Amino acid sequence: MELISKLKKVNKASRQLRLSTTEQRNQVLKIAAELLIAEQKSILKANAQDLKNLPSSTPAAFRDRLTLDITRLGHMAVSLLQVAELPDPLNVETEKRQLPNGLLLRKVRSPLGVVFMIFESRPNVAIEAFSIGFKAGNAMILRGGKESQHTTAALYRILKAALKQADLSEDTLLGITDPDRKIVNQLLKQKELIDVVVPRGGDKLIEFVTENSLIPIIKNDRGMCHIYIHEDARPEMATQILVNAKTQRPGVCNSMETLLIHEKIAATLLPKVYEAMSPFHVRWYAAPRAFKILKKFPMVNVATESSWKTEYLDFAINCKVVNSLEQAIDHIQEFGSRHSESIVTSNEVTARKFQQEVDAAAVYWNASTRFTDGFEFGLGGELGISTQKLHVRGPVGLAALTSERWLIDGTGQIR
Amino acid sequence: MELISKLKKVNKASRQLRLSTTEQRNQVLKIAAELLIAEQKSILKANAQDLKNLPSSTPAAFRDRLTLDITRLGHMAVSLLQVAELPDPLNVETEKRQLPNGLLLRKVRSPLGVVFMIFESRPNVAIEAFSIGFKAGNAMILRGGKESQHTTAALYRILKAALKQADLSEDTLLGITDPDRKIVNQLLKQKELIDVVVPRGGDKLIEFVTENSLIPIIKNDRGMCHIYIHEDARPEMATQILVNAKTQRPGVCNSMETLLIHEKIAATLLPKVYEAMSPFHVRWYAAPRAFKILKKFPMVNVATESSWKTEYLDFAINCKVVNSLEQAIDHIQEFGSRHSESIVTSNEVTARKFQQEVDAAAVYWNASTRFTDGFEFGLGGELGISTQKLHVRGPVGLAALTSERWLIDGTGQIR
Repeated sequence: MELISKLKKVNKASRQLRLSTTEQRNQVLKIAAELLIAEQKSILKANAQDLKNLPSSTPAAFRDRLTLDITRLGHMAVSLLQVAELPDPLNVETEKRQLPNGLLLRKVRSPLGVVFMIFESRPNVAIEAFSIGFKAGNAMILRGGKESQHTTAALYRILKAALKQADLSEDTLLGITDPDRKIVNQLLKQKELIDVVVPRGGDKLIEFVTENSLIPIIKNDRGMCHIYIHEDARPEMATQILVNAKTQRPGVCNSMETLLIHEKIAATLLPKVYEAMSPFHVRWYAAPRAFKILKKFPMVNVATESSWKTEYLDFAINCKVVNSLEQAIDHIQEFGSRHSESIVTSNEVTARKFQQEVDAAAVYWNASTRFTDGFEFGLGGELGISTQKLHVRGPVGLAALTSERWLIDGTGQIR
Repeated sequence: MELISKLKKVNKASRQLRLSTTEQRNQVLKIAAELLIAEQKSILKANAQDLKNLPSSTPAAFRDRLTLDITRLGHMAVSLLQVAELPDPLNVETEKRQLPNGLLLRKVRSPLGVVFMIFESRPNVAIEAFSIGFKAGNAMILRGGKESQHTTAALYRILKAALKQADLSEDTLLGITDPDRKIVNQLLKQKELIDVVVPRGGDKLIEFVTENSLIPIIKNDRGMCHIYIHEDARPEMATQILVNAKTQRPGVCNSMETLLIHEKIAATLLPKVYEAMSPFHVRWYAAPRAFKILKKFPMVNVATESSWKTEYLDFAINCKVVNSLEQAIDHIQEFGSRHSESIVTSNEVTARKFQQEVDAAAVYWNASTRFTDGFEFGLGGELGISTQKLHVRGPVGLAALTSERWLIDGTGQIR
């Protein structure tokens, strides 16, 4: 009951936010940037508490993602200022038309309303998510991982203080720090009070939200990305793209997990690709024909059926030799997660066929899959990468956090 | 298991459909139009069977909605030809941008994939839904009400024959005529094989789908529409709009259910509105102040709390006198279904405030709510009226049945 009454306040705040000006919203973001720096001591203290509470068995990578320092706080402040500089997505007309009867139709971007974002480990996501969702005129409910509860609580205090200083309701943000998962489940049923849920995290979180939510979802699912090297690919270009897509930052969703290569080029190119990746100590999981070519090298294993479904997010790669473009597309349709897929070929007809048939948020020709990102795409940031087909595919930027309504002006028209 | 293997075939057909040409899809629609007329005898025979199976207690309006005759078949054929004439929504570029690194980004409309439409009673929805969904490149799963099962089965046979004649897979359409509701529930779990569910029908159907679906939904919910008459409204314009919105076709979702009127104009205008509607024998449900003004007339009742939530779809109206624009907006935010709302006022500032604050798919100034319709909006038809905020609000036209993907052309770009 207490939760519902809090939600009703958030809902009311979201209505007030519809009337806010661009300047007012930007001011909140700028004040929050200042407060992040001014209040660094209390934030870092809260963060130290979270780090202290981690079991000693916690992997170093996890501990690192949770850790804040003055540099990271600085980056968070800068990102707030960058979002403040972005054009306001609200009240933009995306369509305008006068009907023969004189009615003037305009399709106009408006806030979605109340956005519930669920994220894991990295506490800076709280700042990113709030800045983008709020800039688009939405009241935000944020729920981070339980390991970061003290840090996120400190960040929520900063954001609420900024709202207050800019004369907006503190209820515009509801930060959930209670680690009990039951609360998430309760929130997922409140379809009258929450407009969208945005889960961002591992498979289990996405599955949990999909199974339990009565609220529409913007899903940021896994990135099982492929690159297909066609027989006519330029070997150097192919090698550079593969090395980049696998090794530049393997822990992110737009990195490549599986290399598909045409049989006519496999025997000569695969060893070169292997050598180009060798400084990164990449583990290979190869289907029989690829294994035959690579078996003389260390760290080359035989792929199993589960390899093709595995998002390593690490220095590991699947590899398969295919007979044709069609076979490559078949493999991608079967195992891809509709995130980012790429073909390297010198032939435009081949590239267009690949782009037409492969159903993914981003389909590349002669480029690394690593570009699927809100900043890279020029959207000025993102709340995640959507792998669903409704509403938004790929980077979830400001416009994706609005909804387009019809405003119609008449002079007494009737039917 | 049999159902899953059928679904897999539909999914495969949807992949083939990605490669179809505009002409090929239009040809299917034209052949189907011809077959509807050529095969009228078998369709009407199936329809007679359905009508015969209706219990004798069936309301006349329901029986009428289910009934087909040669005129209605003709209208269905014409609507197929009209959809064939519409521009192809596929492969349209909605954004195009070159990044500083040379990457060319295009956002392109592509099919959603497999669309599952659930509808009730009127069998012509099967033809409308197929034509719009298929034109947008989607394989369609259709499920009508059990009362129309023989009629829809005959229509599915026609559509499949048209697909076959145009060299497309008959699996592009899966018509479910089995009246067992368990099948719907099973289908709603197949998130790997179905991309979108479009329920169109009463509250119970929408609720059932929302509760049970793991697949994203385009919801066509109820239309609890209001018209607010501000103190400065021109009385004749207000009266005309109110009569039109309530009586021109009360059984549809964009008709008005509740009239809100400013206290300064209520005493003079309400009796005029009542008289203008009196030829239609409208029942009134009035809040105390409105009741005081109207109690001398017949068919005027005191409104109860449940009145404000009741979508009559009939010659019945709620009426409430309000103190201010704000009070009108509050009432709409509390009871409206986010479908269509209208204000009648002579003041643009008042109108813009109403349009900004009222969160609905279509917000009118000085016009009847009855215009919220795919044909009226110039979208060339519709699959329904979406009352949700994600993906599409208002009439669900061809573009709303596509998804926008990013296609990116490079020359070897890496990060």
